Amino acid sequence: MTKHRILVQLDSDEQASVFDAVVAVDSEVEHLLQYHSVRPEQVRDLVHGAMFTRGPKDLHNTAVFIGGSDVAKGEQLLAAAKQCFFGPMRVSLMLDANGANTTAAAAVLAAARHIDLAQSEALVLAATGPVGQRAVRLLARGGCKMRVASRSEDRAAAACDAIRSAVADAQLTPVATGDTEQTAVAVEGVDIVIAAGAAGIELLSAELREACSSLKVAVDLNAVPPLGIGGVEVTDKAVERDGAICFGAIGVGGTKMKIHKAAIKSLFDSNDKVLDADDIFAIGQSLEVSE
Amino acid sequence: MTKHRILVQLDSDEQASVFDAVVAVDSEVEHLLQYHSVRPEQVRDLVHGAMFTRGPKDLHNTAVFIGGSDVAKGEQLLAAAKQCFFGPMRVSLMLDANGANTTAAAAVLAAARHIDLAQSEALVLAATGPVGQRAVRLLARGGCKMRVASRSEDRAAAACDAIRSAVADAQLTPVATGDTEQTAVAVEGVDIVIAAGAAGIELLSAELREACSSLKVAVDLNAVPPLGIGGVEVTDKAVERDGAICFGAIGVGGTKMKIHKAAIKSLFDSNDKVLDADDIFAIGQSLEVSE
Amino acid sequence: MTKHRILVQLDSDEQASVFDAVVAVDSEVEHLLQYHSVRPEQVRDLVHGAMFTRGPKDLHNTAVFIGGSDVAKGEQLLAAAKQCFFGPMRVSLMLDANGANTTAAAAVLAAARHIDLAQSEALVLAATGPVGQRAVRLLARGGCKMRVASRSEDRAAAACDAIRSAVADAQLTPVATGDTEQTAVAVEGVDIVIAAGAAGIELLSAELREACSSLKVAVDLNAVPPLGIGGVEVTDKAVERDGAICFGAIGVGGTKMKIHKAAIKSLFDSNDKVLDADDIFAIGQSLEVSE
Repeated sequence: MTKHRILVQLDSDEQASVFDAVVAVDSEVEHLLQYHSVRPEQVRDLVHGAMFTRGPKDLHNTAVFIGGSDVAKGEQLLAAAKQCFFGPMRVSLMLDANGANTTAAAAVLAAARHIDLAQSEALVLAATGPVGQRAVRLLARGGCKMRVASRSEDRAAAACDAIRSAVADAQLTPVATGDTEQTAVAVEGVDIVIAAGAAGIELLSAELREACSSLKVAVDLNAVPPLGIGGVEVTDKAVERDGAICFGAIGVGGTKMKIHKAAIKSLFDSNDKVLDADDIFAIGQSLEVSE
Repeated sequence: MTKHRILVQLDSDEQASVFDAVVAVDSEVEHLLQYHSVRPEQVRDLVHGAMFTRGPKDLHNTAVFIGGSDVAKGEQLLAAAKQCFFGPMRVSLMLDANGANTTAAAAVLAAARHIDLAQSEALVLAATGPVGQRAVRLLARGGCKMRVASRSEDRAAAACDAIRSAVADAQLTPVATGDTEQTAVAVEGVDIVIAAGAAGIELLSAELREACSSLKVAVDLNAVPPLGIGGVEVTDKAVERDGAICFGAIGVGGTKMKIHKAAIKSLFDSNDKVLDADDIFAIGQSLEVSE
Repeated sequence: MTKHRILVQLDSDEQASVFDAVVAVDSEVEHLLQYHSVRPEQVRDLVHGAMFTRGPKDLHNTAVFIGGSDVAKGEQLLAAAKQCFFGPMRVSLMLDANGANTTAAAAVLAAARHIDLAQSEALVLAATGPVGQRAVRLLARGGCKMRVASRSEDRAAAACDAIRSAVADAQLTPVATGDTEQTAVAVEGVDIVIAAGAAGIELLSAELREACSSLKVAVDLNAVPPLGIGGVEVTDKAVERDGAICFGAIGVGGTKMKIHKAAIKSLFDSNDKVLDADDIFAIGQSLEVSE
């Protein structure tokens, strides 16, 4: 008898995400086991329960999804889960806490449809956050020259150091965007801007965006007004504004959702997947090719 | 591909209701997502997760059920859920905390099978509680002249004021039932009595019930002895006792369950239902007609 | 319409067991309702919800599984659940907190394949724990002469008293295994040894095992090194070592899993099962016969 596909949803929030649960159901998961308030020290027993119930040839029908709004906590849960395995005794894992991996992948893919990353220079605003850091990493791997922005240059520099440890040949420049003058300098001459900031905070004004004649692609990942990039609409999906192709959060949402579902489905192809930012981006790239 | 029907069960109790869960499964819900200890401030993220995962044409396959033993908390969760929607982006909602809506509907429908509400006068005992208030509201909408009883006349009067704001033309008289003498006066001349009190408390003695020659229908919603109306059995289902048609809690339970299931199923007909007392009663009425 | 099979998983741990959940899914449970942090006083409402939703002829499609790592708490939950029933209004129950019932059953069945229990003398090490006590009980019922071992003889004697109240004609001798000398005496002349101790603690050294020329079957239930019986491997499944047939924790795991699944499936045969140690062992015996 074929085993049903079981997804174990580990969520660090007080209530497990309904969003992640619905996507799981829509990705052919047959039984979803939801866990909330999950702490790293609880992961071992939970993952062992997934590992030690089905035989080796059926283990690929059980997988673990790690979510929750706190990306740092999600990373801790992922680290704890990876430590549970030995030899072939393992189950596939996916991290998408706060949607950070699928969002960063969708943003970079949206840009890559309109410009050659390897020939471009990109500015990521609020690059120290989880989505921002992931976007920088993915763009840098694509060969993009990066400006890594934060209100404080120290924090930007620290983010650059962290990213360099993951992408050795990354071309990263920390830039401060503490005020309009600094932001004007930061954006000057770039081909791509991705705004990865918190909801309701404008990171780049409409004036600065319009004044940036080099700008070819702008992606704003903030869904709650005021948006992160002035003049970009949340529903923008490859809308040309003042010479730049613009995307809003809903505009990249379709791609994000496709990546999320494809990633969940791929968990069940084998029992040894560990899907984090790069792997999820690669899944997104394969979807672009197949379309 | 047709989307599976997902019901999100939001429950304010420490453990989500098994009762509501089993009814959901028996109402063709394919995936039940259970949430316990839900607080109003958590509702937004949960409901957004239901709203923002499926496209507009599939949103009717996701719905939210609000339960829990505390009706006031359930009402807060419902209010919070309604505030999450904008435009066509919404999912259907149902409130049946403590079974209050389905129970009140079943009680009033049981009575309406045997008497013309518009030509009757009814006494609701323990009318200030959630089931009692709902029963008064439904009877008043049916044209029934109401006596709204509580141990304290002040509390009864306050309940009348609350009900009047919902049913403008309601004919409501607050009555005190603090002792046997008051209860004897309260019940004198009424056609219908509904006892909606707490488990194990007798609200109307067998003597007073027998002495009430006008009484045509008596409905007791208390399932735990001593029952709310003396001499009525918990399993009574249209049993004649001393000239009155009597119903016990189990006797109306079948109708209550049918209404509950029909209401859950109807959630998935469209994505814009908000099923509270009146809507759930209307579903019950449509079931009566179809039988 | 046939009702779906619903299993209510009541778990006293902060997170409900993934292991028990996956086994449930693999045992044809169609809807699993998971409850964690369950306390005895919460059981009534939960079990009533299972009892009062489906009619008598469908009640066998709802059942309750009680798990969690703490066997004593599991026993309290089982006791609370049994008190909820009246007359034919009941649902089937199964206790397998910490896997104690299925593990003890699998260990005793493994031994019984290789030796006639009624003609044997057996030593259970760490016999005061939940698995140990169950193994003693099952062996004693099979007619085995028992040595009930604990580090302290007082605790061993107390365990004997407890077991005697369940198995009146049990032949039980309390033995102390506080040091190597005591353990050497305890093991001398026995046919069977079962080690039911905590993970990572050696209860019987390889030297003592090898020196015990009477030993015919050795079962070690500890899966984490150092194992409970020196020289036995965790994967041993009827491996002969120094004249004795040896089993490790993984070696009996297959039998344990078969018993667990068969027990879950049997819950849905009728609505009046109460599966604790003896009943689960009997299910295991019937599986042996059918193979």
